[in-house]
Amino acid sequence: MQGLMQDWPLTVDRILDHAKAWHGEREIVSRSVEGPIVRTTYAEVHARAKRVSNALLGLGIKPGDRVATLAWNTARHIEAWYGIMGIGAVCHTLNPRLFAEQLVYIINHADDRIIFTDLTFLPILAAIRDQIPKVEHFVVLTDDAHMTDALPGALAYESLIEQASADCTWGGFDENTAAGLCYTSGTTGNPKGVLYSHRSNFLHTLTTMSRDVMGIGATDVILPVVPMFHANAWGLAFSCPAVGAKLVMPGQKLDGASVYELLETEGVTFSAAVPTVWQMLLTHLRETKAKLTTLKRVVIGGSAVPEAIVRGFRDEFGVDVTHAWGMTETSPLGTLSVPNAAVAAMDEEAQLQFKLKQGRAPLGIELKLTDDAGESLPHDGTTFGRLKVRGSFVVGEYFKGEGGKILDEDGFFDTGDVATVDEYGYMQITDRAKDVIKSGGEWISSIEIENLAAGHPKAAIAAVIGVPHPKWDERPLLLVKLREGESSTKEEFLGFLDGKIAKWWMPDDVVFVDDIPLGATGKIDKKVIRQAYETYVLPSAKPAGAAAQAAARAPKLTAPDDGEG
Amino acid sequence: MQGLMQDWPLTVDRILDHAKAWHGEREIVSRSVEGPIVRTTYAEVHARAKRVSNALLGLGIKPGDRVATLAWNTARHIEAWYGIMGIGAVCHTLNPRLFAEQLVYIINHADDRIIFTDLTFLPILAAIRDQIPKVEHFVVLTDDAHMTDALPGALAYESLIEQASADCTWGGFDENTAAGLCYTSGTTGNPKGVLYSHRSNFLHTLTTMSRDVMGIGATDVILPVVPMFHANAWGLAFSCPAVGAKLVMPGQKLDGASVYELLETEGVTFSAAVPTVWQMLLTHLRETKAKLTTLKRVVIGGSAVPEAIVRGFRDEFGVDVTHAWGMTETSPLGTLSVPNAAVAAMDEEAQLQFKLKQGRAPLGIELKLTDDAGESLPHDGTTFGRLKVRGSFVVGEYFKGEGGKILDEDGFFDTGDVATVDEYGYMQITDRAKDVIKSGGEWISSIEIENLAAGHPKAAIAAVIGVPHPKWDERPLLLVKLREGESSTKEEFLGFLDGKIAKWWMPDDVVFVDDIPLGATGKIDKKVIRQAYETYVLPSAKPAGAAAQAAARAPKLTAPDDGEG
Repeated sequence: MQGLMQDWPLTVDRILDHAKAWHGEREIVSRSVEGPIVRTTYAEVHARAKRVSNALLGLGIKPGDRVATLAWNTARHIEAWYGIMGIGAVCHTLNPRLFAEQLVYIINHADDRIIFTDLTFLPILAAIRDQIPKVEHFVVLTDDAHMTDALPGALAYESLIEQASADCTWGGFDENTAAGLCYTSGTTGNPKGVLYSHRSNFLHTLTTMSRDVMGIGATDVILPVVPMFHANAWGLAFSCPAVGAKLVMPGQKLDGASVYELLETEGVTFSAAVPTVWQMLLTHLRETKAKLTTLKRVVIGGSAVPEAIVRGFRDEFGVDVTHAWGMTETSPLGTLSVPNAAVAAMDEEAQLQFKLKQGRAPLGIELKLTDDAGESLPHDGTTFGRLKVRGSFVVGEYFKGEGGKILDEDGFFDTGDVATVDEYGYMQITDRAKDVIKSGGEWISSIEIENLAAGHPKAAIAAVIGVPHPKWDERPLLLVKLREGESSTKEEFLGFLDGKIAKWWMPDDVVFVDDIPLGATGKIDKKVIRQAYETYVLPSAKPAGAAAQAAARAPKLTAPDDGEG
Repeated sequence: MQGLMQDWPLTVDRILDHAKAWHGEREIVSRSVEGPIVRTTYAEVHARAKRVSNALLGLGIKPGDRVATLAWNTARHIEAWYGIMGIGAVCHTLNPRLFAEQLVYIINHADDRIIFTDLTFLPILAAIRDQIPKVEHFVVLTDDAHMTDALPGALAYESLIEQASADCTWGGFDENTAAGLCYTSGTTGNPKGVLYSHRSNFLHTLTTMSRDVMGIGATDVILPVVPMFHANAWGLAFSCPAVGAKLVMPGQKLDGASVYELLETEGVTFSAAVPTVWQMLLTHLRETKAKLTTLKRVVIGGSAVPEAIVRGFRDEFGVDVTHAWGMTETSPLGTLSVPNAAVAAMDEEAQLQFKLKQGRAPLGIELKLTDDAGESLPHDGTTFGRLKVRGSFVVGEYFKGEGGKILDEDGFFDTGDVATVDEYGYMQITDRAKDVIKSGGEWISSIEIENLAAGHPKAAIAAVIGVPHPKWDERPLLLVKLREGESSTKEEFLGFLDGKIAKWWMPDDVVFVDDIPLGATGKIDKKVIRQAYETYVLPSAKPAGAAAQAAARAPKLTAPDDGEG
């Protein structure tokens, strides 16, 4: 028997309709790419997004067609999103930080017909234009006065939409219709596309509005530093209009001084960004002895939150930090370190340890930890396993079937992360699955050891990888780059780790290196290190007395390796 | 093009699964019908609800079958709900406050096969048992020790589920599957059933979790005084497990002293009830000079919130009141008087005036005001029109098609309420549509006049109805019951109203009566009054000089009418 409630498809155009109807005069303030601060409202953005829709229809865009954006966080970018999605086309967010060849691959793979771009990115597009022949139009998010000849034939956004009618019917299609497309850079193989539906975006929005998730409301003033091209600005381009919050869009200036200026002049109460942005802000605040007079809460994700940032915000500025975890494949919010009753009852220092975890799952996200065989593992805070997720806004398969079947037999998606879940339900990422060291059937977290080793006063940076071992399959190898002018020994570092980790986690060797390679996102590039140390023979894997010889064969990384344990 | 996210049906069993997985040890405390306070947890309730499912399957219940509950708010009632819904059967909540003949009609109309009942209601069921022959089993929510012979053949809940396995697969069906059934008492004709789906319940739950709706979280301790049989306890039996809040269930004792005891001993932070319950609590608090040490917020709905309650909670007890509006047909939450940015910026007294309105719509509820022709009316705070709603958890049609087509051509449901919406988006109910007085093509709010008249120091209660008028179609007639020992005149009351309402709203006559009839819910029964005054001739409708004769024909109501204006 079916229920008899209304058929009301969950399509994202209803979100902006809601904002127009009930929060029409609420502001969206943008630091424009052209420079000045510009102000608009949800009602104006709604009307202009309708013009975008008609402009796209005029350019021949049909339901299901992909229209890309290569743009900073501004009101125009929001107009483009809703204008594209409202008519059933697919908004494909391009990440300008990708290498040119990745952009080419993604644009071609997605069959993008039109690209909306900020002025900033015209040189990038001009350079690859010949390689993306399927793109029919480039629309530059500016007015005629600011157009350049960097990309001949490109259209000026303001002229284009000025000629289009603001009368356009949105929605009216199935809620499972594709709405957005975002590629994950992928550690192996080509980037893969996550194809969001209107339903998944709408349900993600409702979920993020919960008090124990983003917990935002109509009285908030929200600055999404996290870009709309980075996992949908963690949903804020949907959830802010959904609650009627004032939106403050930072454009391209994400440095400490620029972010601080907006926080204070616009009365921001809530913001979201990756740790590096907050580190820049805290540095700026300390250098200028500035105060935060309105900011109450920041959500931090993208990578693990350093304790110093949580303490800095809390102790110096009275701002509460919420650590979040998610990925492009989860729309992106998966977990947040929001206190439950048991944690809320603890003292401040104990609570802080939970803020360093990635947190707990809201209704709608199912999590499990499994071993390599797919067996569930206990939630005891120490056992770590593959983190798998299931839910209405979790990827089911990649665009065009890339990567094949990606769900397990129970429908869970393997995140590629390795994590623990404690008795209070708080998840903590301990490693990437590919970086975990598998020793004698047990798993060792490379990240945990390298974070500890990096805490040694002489260490500048440390990395741990697993290297092949005849008896244990793999054993940990610690690489240390020392601070300028320091010298040390293997024994000094192993002694430093002694008592901090289990005996069987102790690295079998320590190698001092001149440099440790970092990837494009600033994380340690384990792939490069693993390749370099593929044939490294650990002292423990050699007959006694051969250790010195093995160490002598330590390979070069990005710089000559002159340190040896 | 369809999105490629996971197929994850929104079924309510996932809510209790979530509570078990992430908030398993969180308590549900009940004042049992047998007397003592009993404590359980979400994990235990989950296991016992699975046993309920198996017991129902053992009794032959199949997907789509209706299983009723006639019960107070207790943990057992929650187990029954999830046990019924988890296997795709339909949980039909019966309201014990209905007249016996209404219960008979509803039980038969719904084809209920099993009724779960509290001990309290055995006499009611025993009295009507012969008239509800399709009911195959009665399950009494108690143990063997407390069973009585009031309803021969009835089963004891505890024995029944003890014999059933806790291993049962829930869900796996379409999210549009019917989950719940609740009848509205209906002002005309027979009661009509609203058939909720899993989807509508799930979406209502996500919506209520928003900060600007119920705004509840895992650290809350929640006392739903509003019964599960009254519009689903405003969704709290779903949203509390969804967020992991501690639940405090009051059983059958809803008096001030009993509610106060639970509020304090269990550390309740959030509660929800109709105004009369709060009036009883405030009276108790004042009489006993008691304090509220943990309660932060109460949601009040069911009928308009008197200003004295808002002020009492705020000024004497530091508790924030949120006024809510909804109905069985809206699952039930429609609007809440939560501040938006403009209202939050006002001073406390100005904000209070918004708390007296029914509030604003969250994402997912679309509201419009129309005239009788269906044309939309302005949101100016003074124009009032029919309130119509649309959304994913709004009724589409009544059970078994009763009442025929109930949506307008745009898919909106006419609530039967008449309301204004102000420039800030706050809706205020001004009347029931059938009580509105239509004078010369314009509408007059009967409630607004009678509320003002009731504020006269000599008035005990006042009612306003429209009576036929040859020129204006209808004109307002004011009926006043004076306080014991008082006497007054028509002129005194009209003088009291002068300046408080528009001239053309002024009642054409005032009749002093001994009593004003109230309906089962304590509201003024306008239907009875209108019938009694059907042929009443207003002085203004008579030739000059005939007024005295007209007044002399004022009909009897529930008591002799000896007062005349």
